[in-house]
Amino acid sequence: MQLALSTWHEVENYLKSSDGIIIPIGSTEQHGPNGLIGTDHLCSEVVARGVGDRIGCAVAPTLAYGMSQHHLSFAGSATLRPSTLMLVVRDVVQSLAVHGFRHFFFINGHGGNVATVAAGFDEMYAGVSLSDGTKPVRCKMMLWSNGPRAKALAAELYGNANGSHATAAEVSLVQYYCPEHVKYAQMSPKVAPSGHPFFEAEHYRATYADGRIGSDPSLSTPEHGALLFAAAVDDMVEQYQAFLKCGG
Amino acid sequence: MQLALSTWHEVENYLKSSDGIIIPIGSTEQHGPNGLIGTDHLCSEVVARGVGDRIGCAVAPTLAYGMSQHHLSFAGSATLRPSTLMLVVRDVVQSLAVHGFRHFFFINGHGGNVATVAAGFDEMYAGVSLSDGTKPVRCKMMLWSNGPRAKALAAELYGNANGSHATAAEVSLVQYYCPEHVKYAQMSPKVAPSGHPFFEAEHYRATYADGRIGSDPSLSTPEHGALLFAAAVDDMVEQYQAFLKCGG
Amino acid sequence: MQLALSTWHEVENYLKSSDGIIIPIGSTEQHGPNGLIGTDHLCSEVVARGVGDRIGCAVAPTLAYGMSQHHLSFAGSATLRPSTLMLVVRDVVQSLAVHGFRHFFFINGHGGNVATVAAGFDEMYAGVSLSDGTKPVRCKMMLWSNGPRAKALAAELYGNANGSHATAAEVSLVQYYCPEHVKYAQMSPKVAPSGHPFFEAEHYRATYADGRIGSDPSLSTPEHGALLFAAAVDDMVEQYQAFLKCGG
Amino acid sequence: MQLALSTWHEVENYLKSSDGIIIPIGSTEQHGPNGLIGTDHLCSEVVARGVGDRIGCAVAPTLAYGMSQHHLSFAGSATLRPSTLMLVVRDVVQSLAVHGFRHFFFINGHGGNVATVAAGFDEMYAGVSLSDGTKPVRCKMMLWSNGPRAKALAAELYGNANGSHATAAEVSLVQYYCPEHVKYAQMSPKVAPSGHPFFEAEHYRATYADGRIGSDPSLSTPEHGALLFAAAVDDMVEQYQAFLKCGG
Amino acid sequence: MQLALSTWHEVENYLKSSDGIIIPIGSTEQHGPNGLIGTDHLCSEVVARGVGDRIGCAVAPTLAYGMSQHHLSFAGSATLRPSTLMLVVRDVVQSLAVHGFRHFFFINGHGGNVATVAAGFDEMYAGVSLSDGTKPVRCKMMLWSNGPRAKALAAELYGNANGSHATAAEVSLVQYYCPEHVKYAQMSPKVAPSGHPFFEAEHYRATYADGRIGSDPSLSTPEHGALLFAAAVDDMVEQYQAFLKCGG
Amino acid sequence: MQLALSTWHEVENYLKSSDGIIIPIGSTEQHGPNGLIGTDHLCSEVVARGVGDRIGCAVAPTLAYGMSQHHLSFAGSATLRPSTLMLVVRDVVQSLAVHGFRHFFFINGHGGNVATVAAGFDEMYAGVSLSDGTKPVRCKMMLWSNGPRAKALAAELYGNANGSHATAAEVSLVQYYCPEHVKYAQMSPKVAPSGHPFFEAEHYRATYADGRIGSDPSLSTPEHGALLFAAAVDDMVEQYQAFLKCGG
Repeated sequence: MQLALSTWHEVENYLKSSDGIIIPIGSTEQHGPNGLIGTDHLCSEVVARGVGDRIGCAVAPTLAYGMSQHHLSFAGSATLRPSTLMLVVRDVVQSLAVHGFRHFFFINGHGGNVATVAAGFDEMYAGVSLSDGTKPVRCKMMLWSNGPRAKALAAELYGNANGSHATAAEVSLVQYYCPEHVKYAQMSPKVAPSGHPFFEAEHYRATYADGRIGSDPSLSTPEHGALLFAAAVDDMVEQYQAFLKCGG
Repeated sequence: MQLALSTWHEVENYLKSSDGIIIPIGSTEQHGPNGLIGTDHLCSEVVARGVGDRIGCAVAPTLAYGMSQHHLSFAGSATLRPSTLMLVVRDVVQSLAVHGFRHFFFINGHGGNVATVAAGFDEMYAGVSLSDGTKPVRCKMMLWSNGPRAKALAAELYGNANGSHATAAEVSLVQYYCPEHVKYAQMSPKVAPSGHPFFEAEHYRATYADGRIGSDPSLSTPEHGALLFAAAVDDMVEQYQAFLKCGG
Repeated sequence: MQLALSTWHEVENYLKSSDGIIIPIGSTEQHGPNGLIGTDHLCSEVVARGVGDRIGCAVAPTLAYGMSQHHLSFAGSATLRPSTLMLVVRDVVQSLAVHGFRHFFFINGHGGNVATVAAGFDEMYAGVSLSDGTKPVRCKMMLWSNGPRAKALAAELYGNANGSHATAAEVSLVQYYCPEHVKYAQMSPKVAPSGHPFFEAEHYRATYADGRIGSDPSLSTPEHGALLFAAAVDDMVEQYQAFLKCGG
Repeated sequence: MQLALSTWHEVENYLKSSDGIIIPIGSTEQHGPNGLIGTDHLCSEVVARGVGDRIGCAVAPTLAYGMSQHHLSFAGSATLRPSTLMLVVRDVVQSLAVHGFRHFFFINGHGGNVATVAAGFDEMYAGVSLSDGTKPVRCKMMLWSNGPRAKALAAELYGNANGSHATAAEVSLVQYYCPEHVKYAQMSPKVAPSGHPFFEAEHYRATYADGRIGSDPSLSTPEHGALLFAAAVDDMVEQYQAFLKCGG
Repeated sequence: MQLALSTWHEVENYLKSSDGIIIPIGSTEQHGPNGLIGTDHLCSEVVARGVGDRIGCAVAPTLAYGMSQHHLSFAGSATLRPSTLMLVVRDVVQSLAVHGFRHFFFINGHGGNVATVAAGFDEMYAGVSLSDGTKPVRCKMMLWSNGPRAKALAAELYGNANGSHATAAEVSLVQYYCPEHVKYAQMSPKVAPSGHPFFEAEHYRATYADGRIGSDPSLSTPEHGALLFAAAVDDMVEQYQAFLKCGG
Repeated sequence: MQLALSTWHEVENYLKSSDGIIIPIGSTEQHGPNGLIGTDHLCSEVVARGVGDRIGCAVAPTLAYGMSQHHLSFAGSATLRPSTLMLVVRDVVQSLAVHGFRHFFFINGHGGNVATVAAGFDEMYAGVSLSDGTKPVRCKMMLWSNGPRAKALAAELYGNANGSHATAAEVSLVQYYCPEHVKYAQMSPKVAPSGHPFFEAEHYRATYADGRIGSDPSLSTPEHGALLFAAAVDDMVEQYQAFLKCGG
């Protein structure tokens, strides 16, 4: 059940039997020579909607902008500052909590969001401890690619060439979700460098010249994407259902 | 050209011939008995993409959450606080400006965003005046429904029963965009009340019981939506092209 | 009853019979060749005090600084950033609410404040919806020049030459309020240009060279000001009394 | 030269020969049984204007709301939070600095503002040190009652019964400035208690029942006010002129 | 009882008989040719621990960074912006208040903190008045060097050559606390200049070339430090015990 | 070289040959029945000072308060909100950068700080990308216990009973650093539970009754602490020296 495609009466009904919701979150940032700028939010969106279709849980509109400061030297990348993204997370969670939602499961498509969103959760919990009357919510975030099935599949398909940014797996998944927007590009070197630390955007670009880290997304295909989609939905269904049992 | 569906090389090329971009912005809030919670962002998204398809201009990912505090007494509504939305606008504009974008045209689907986003623009301009080195950008926001063609068409189709929230026109446009999600509901009264001021969310609900203001969206049809889409795209193309000429 | 000229005992008494208060708000910004920098706050102040004198309602000290970023290229203009002005509005309203004030009617002298103050009201209402315990207040802002009598009178006196910044009407009203500070200047062109969008301060000045928009304030006289004062007080009394009935 | 009563051309001229400006700042808070709620800002305003009239220096519109959290248990008091007042100070100073003002002399009417405004100055200076491009301004704040002449006169007129809140001197000065608003009240005890610490508003009221600290403002007269005005203007002229010489 | 060296069970026990705690606060900033950068926080720390050892009261970890923007032109100085330090004070106080601490006595080693921390206290109290549910705490800050015994002793030892920054007294106290880190330097001039106002960091350095104000810390000895320690602990014990009686 | 124990001349000299500095960061929070509330900041402090003693690098004063919201149900715990801690990190780094420090190596004693501090680093880098003139700094944070030697040693000494909060290793290290403050307590159960998620403070306490997670700190000894100290200093020296080579 996509929140955006429901009426408020339908949501009111839903809340009689569940207090859980999935929020897809990603980024708007370069993904190398053949990866789309929307890769991260498209991945989390398609997986989240897949979970919603499978088990009928609520899926909120996608948070398409994430923490991408390190990609700003590549055209088209946009970022929320960490402090802004923390407020966005707070506002979305706290206003949905008004209606009775309590378990917020963020399916994430971007490693760069992890620290900021975790800090955002703690900011909310700190508010609770300091007694400002906010109801205790339960928040969890997980990368769609980090469940056991999707991880194993990516390893099987690409080995080390999956990489850690503009991964072969995420490019495949987007090719499956948006088959009319498959792009082709020569990769040079075939597998991108990896293992170097990076700091602000200029440094990132000086370190990773075409944007990729450790990946060879010329291996990506829509067919791989279909397999990865199925694996990730299975993973996330399992994770979400376990999470709903976190009470307290 | 949707930013999310492009590579960074494609955006780099685009910037050689244009510094303009369209940002769809809407809300996630109740839209009465048969309107979808995503109505406002779905409307601005479909129109923005229509403009992008027509003239090839860049279209950023949709800002799906807006300033909707007054709708929080209806299940499923979510809001960004005005101060948060102002930061989101600043971050998205300032990071895209890093690449050379300069004309930011927000196609808006939600009247409740108008004041906050205008305040957000002034916050950015104030930063310029106070010499912190930010490049002077050009921002404009316009409701998709406020161009001459769309306005005339809505008046012709619905007269006063178009209303001002959960309007017949926006419900039609979403029925056109998402034909598998057309909902039906009895409207009672047929045309919703209007003309009363409202303040915080509880007061809004006490004033407008089913969420609508002044509208009869049982008149909506996907066919109307198709006509409204064409009119709004024509309007917004005209507005956007005029806006690109604002220099200084 | 001016708050500044009352004792706390008198305010305590007043609150036994009314929970309403008027807050004049304006700006400190250029008003063309013969308009005073204080024009906007002097206008709202004189009208607010006129209302207070007529019907005995409470009038708070004037908020003399507003959102004027676009005027910063003219000497003497000062601005609060939108985010600052929103906090000022919040603090003044919330601290007066501690005593039992509940209806806050802002008489405004500056169009540039409209978006920011509306966003400030929504920020407060959002706090209520998110249950932080703030009492639901009722806020409304209106331009002194926007009531039916003042509007008609300005049209009658100046037609299109009233303009939209450094208007003939506001210059007249200040000449009536501060007759010892009437200034004279040649207007060139006689009626200022209008209709062009403006963005940050430099752009405004490049567009509107002497600061005026669409007006010919060489038409202004203290006598007109007296008439406008009477009309605006009538308008605002009517508006304020209607507003006090907004409950919920 | 009052900024509010000048045109931008006049301010432009003024800046050719001086970069100094006086900003009156006070509060909106209870001042005991016969003191006006506006006492603090009326005092700083009348003295600042007196200085402006005497030596022709620029005087900005009065900051009528200050840091008064401890008075909120008395009807009619309003406060800016310290964090808000710091932003107001920053915005007013930084926007006037755009035009070339560099020496900002705050004439203060309220002891409760001292810490917050000093913190606000440091916040601005910290910005300079951290190289954000802000021009180094020179700010100083002084209580109108703290110059040698005014201090000696208050001691001569009232001795210890001048007190430290709702002082006999400030009540006199306002009686001189606003002779139509002189109030009379029995003081009980004649001289208010003093010497106890206070914290938040409830604690203040429990400690100082009618709002005064250590004063007997039934001694106040408009004639004293006239004398105090002359003394304070002399003091502030001297202080301001010395301050203008602070360069660096 | 140092909080850092206790278990939570021990703190729980402590709270059965006392709701008071001492928080040492200082700075990390230049202290002239022979003063250590940590002088201010080392002084407040050693005195606070001395009080804790004497009467068994709780002593929190030292706040080693303060408001030192004016020292940033001397290598090694660090500052919190005033707005940051206010939040630090709020967070530490409000989270300790969760456990039942109510009397917070800050022993301060740095004059530059005074305004900011006082503003921070008012920010917290303002929150209380505005009814956000925070429990009313009692906060007080005092310079370790400002009690009667320490003040008299410093005057006796150094007269005017004690100065007001990098004072002979504070340098002595640190020599007593950290005897292995006594530094020697020629002072030129022997007694530093004083009496000039200062603003941002560059201006401070231009005014006070080696960092000292009015002092001759070549007079300092560890033996003086031992005497000053004893005097300051006596002073602070007295002040703290009086403060604990502030109820309301 | 401890910054706190140096003069500004010494720091000026140091900067001629190095632009690196170590900042110890920890927390003030419960560490189970026999762990000290200061455990995390004492651990990072002793290791950082050990590194400073070994290779002469600069060590800043310890950040003793961290992000500990989840421990607030245990007496004596204090937390900075994530948003506050991010500002503290920014202020300390940016003001030390004024002097020429460029490589900031945070030795961390508390897992709960990781997300927030990483978000704080990104907030600074985002500022760089958005061209506000801040110099690009290089920041890295690492847990003292996460280097290869310390990790292996803890595994060898305690196996799984090292745990993840109030670990046997950190308790040992503090016993070595503060031998006069060794505490003894019965552990029940001997090895604390682990593996359950936690959210706000109340939930944490309901889940982990005596504060420990997965550890048996009754195994801790000062002798183990001495070994762990040596291992961690070796690890951190290696890490710091590699980090200094990160340029760009």
